[in-house]
Amino acid sequence: MSIVTLTTDFGLADAYVGAMKGVILGIASGSDLVDLTHQIAPHNVREAAFALWASYRYFPSGTVHLVVVDPGVGGDRRAVALRTATAYFVGPDNGVFSYVKASETVAAVEILVRCYRLQHVSDTFHGRDVFAPAAAHLAAGVPLTQLGPPITDLQVLPPPQLAVRANRIVGEVLHADRFGNLITSIGQFEWAGKTARLTPVPWAAGGRPLEIEATRATIRIGDIELAGIRRSYAQAEVGDTLATIGGSGQLEIAIREGNAAKALGLRTGDSVDITIY
Amino acid sequence: MSIVTLTTDFGLADAYVGAMKGVILGIASGSDLVDLTHQIAPHNVREAAFALWASYRYFPSGTVHLVVVDPGVGGDRRAVALRTATAYFVGPDNGVFSYVKASETVAAVEILVRCYRLQHVSDTFHGRDVFAPAAAHLAAGVPLTQLGPPITDLQVLPPPQLAVRANRIVGEVLHADRFGNLITSIGQFEWAGKTARLTPVPWAAGGRPLEIEATRATIRIGDIELAGIRRSYAQAEVGDTLATIGGSGQLEIAIREGNAAKALGLRTGDSVDITIY
Amino acid sequence: MSIVTLTTDFGLADAYVGAMKGVILGIASGSDLVDLTHQIAPHNVREAAFALWASYRYFPSGTVHLVVVDPGVGGDRRAVALRTATAYFVGPDNGVFSYVKASETVAAVEILVRCYRLQHVSDTFHGRDVFAPAAAHLAAGVPLTQLGPPITDLQVLPPPQLAVRANRIVGEVLHADRFGNLITSIGQFEWAGKTARLTPVPWAAGGRPLEIEATRATIRIGDIELAGIRRSYAQAEVGDTLATIGGSGQLEIAIREGNAAKALGLRTGDSVDITIY
Repeated sequence: MSIVTLTTDFGLADAYVGAMKGVILGIASGSDLVDLTHQIAPHNVREAAFALWASYRYFPSGTVHLVVVDPGVGGDRRAVALRTATAYFVGPDNGVFSYVKASETVAAVEILVRCYRLQHVSDTFHGRDVFAPAAAHLAAGVPLTQLGPPITDLQVLPPPQLAVRANRIVGEVLHADRFGNLITSIGQFEWAGKTARLTPVPWAAGGRPLEIEATRATIRIGDIELAGIRRSYAQAEVGDTLATIGGSGQLEIAIREGNAAKALGLRTGDSVDITIY
Repeated sequence: MSIVTLTTDFGLADAYVGAMKGVILGIASGSDLVDLTHQIAPHNVREAAFALWASYRYFPSGTVHLVVVDPGVGGDRRAVALRTATAYFVGPDNGVFSYVKASETVAAVEILVRCYRLQHVSDTFHGRDVFAPAAAHLAAGVPLTQLGPPITDLQVLPPPQLAVRANRIVGEVLHADRFGNLITSIGQFEWAGKTARLTPVPWAAGGRPLEIEATRATIRIGDIELAGIRRSYAQAEVGDTLATIGGSGQLEIAIREGNAAKALGLRTGDSVDITIY
Repeated sequence: MSIVTLTTDFGLADAYVGAMKGVILGIASGSDLVDLTHQIAPHNVREAAFALWASYRYFPSGTVHLVVVDPGVGGDRRAVALRTATAYFVGPDNGVFSYVKASETVAAVEILVRCYRLQHVSDTFHGRDVFAPAAAHLAAGVPLTQLGPPITDLQVLPPPQLAVRANRIVGEVLHADRFGNLITSIGQFEWAGKTARLTPVPWAAGGRPLEIEATRATIRIGDIELAGIRRSYAQAEVGDTLATIGGSGQLEIAIREGNAAKALGLRTGDSVDITIY
């Protein structure tokens, strides 16, 4: 019995996700279906790429990740399936797998073989008619190479802004979450005592590893300046703004028990930097 | 192991849906639970009827579809269960199964036998106390006829507006989805080359099949006029308004990578027509 | 195969809940995952405590209830796991289990044993790194006492306002649901003919059982006064305000097919009382 995750921009008000799940269970009976999110902003491929990257590592080996953020449906963008050492990915070839591809060795195919689609394929809902069946067949044990011919030229998004120098790192806000926490492109960090070890995210061009003593860093974002990187929200007073390392290993700007995105008026694409002294 | 889908107007902020799932899993252990949607507008029976109709066909044979949009709970509306050739349906007898009934031969019973309810039945939450147990017992293999006496006078909603003539079709907007795509009562279409074949939706009174050459149609909705039916969103430029055939086979008005409902100020019930020349 | 429910303030726009589910399925393969709600207001421990209390009773014996509303993550609040006669509970020790504890005999431990956590534990996402693994290990059959040492001093929230006297009951609004129904602290009621039997909710201090003849009660809330307790919404005219007994057994103020919270301008914490004559 295998796991299929679903990530879309369909929202939950319509029954589109439900129809996809019906298709999957009709092919891969008994598989476990897990929603990553269906609230990607409509057509926002980069947001989906990040959500997938931040969470796929937490699933057991063999999981199939289905992503349908597909502004080009019915056009000439390809339908693709990927295999890494531990997982499968299915979706449109529009860059949505960029960050996974930067992190792992992938084998990819174009989904072309008709018997792995629904019998009737609409021109407007490939999530249900093409991608869900392909994901389900992989979950049911069909080898990747059965779905279609290998390809080596997957679409890739331009990487987020991230420049790592010896005493300065410049990045951007990637995402504001439900709490208003601002997740940035600066990472991945891991704590080693009082030192935050930076191993630049796999999608960063020219990044280099770095160790930052938590108290010897100044973080600038918008009009504000924050002293030091805290281990967690609990190390700030309620209502105070802080920089910390979020659950996905990225530098995060937060207000303890508050909403940093709203209070600071910041959002995706805004610049953030760390100066180390 | 069988599948139970859930469609309600409960939203996801409260734990009402969760409680229903607890009840189902207590009776039909191991069944797969799939949410169609819980964001039906409160008490909007027609919206639920359409959401169900557009998606139930994609589930494997034997699936039980549980629908709880139930403004009459605690009054004298009946609790019913239906069986078609491939599926079961459970919910209040308020018209929510109208479109399924128009599409299929159904056998129906009134749910009256007490051992298929929870022991304590509230007067305000039959979703949890009456409908969820009935759906679960069907999923666990109890025959439909065990739940109560047969009935033949199911409530039916007035059909959506749809008039099909030789060179003009008049319908209405049924639903605006998350993308702002306006799904209309005009359908179901299927492409045959450049021709869109119309087989009037089963709930339409007096409709007749028709073939429309895609380029020889003018679509009018609100203040705008659209030339031709496109195969998909990708056949319009980004930002352009188009008429296409959506995933459920209905005529759909969309803006490529935009929100037609917002931009055009249109909504459910607004008139739409196609002139064929 | 066991059931794990999830209650958080994470919302559904981010993939945080998805990552937790990946962790659970990696440890307790094949368990059934049920969302209670992920839309608890950020950091609102009391709202989570109520949502959990109102729904956990509907799950089969052995279910594990995972609750992550955790403003103190990374601070010194403890991670705890509880066992009652029929269920398990896992979450932060911040009062979120107050109402369960008031209702049942519980055994509790502090989650300290490292092999029941993820190998790398972040300081900002214990839901994924500490609580999800603990819940999954319980679901997989690990005995409660393996997770850490027993504790007897669980944090408890101050109880909601509820004063029960012979001819007057004073309580407060606990929650407004999606329909705008105002669920109060006054309960739990059960109907016995025309009499509503009140057995004060387990968290009430000094409450006493009482029988209220439905027609001999006046309910006051905000500026309005309602005559009698109705059995269900259907006993009022569409648009009328009524007092009834909701699905969780609590006194509820509703407008039939309307939104009482909006129309009456009422919300959590507002006072409500019943006078019996």
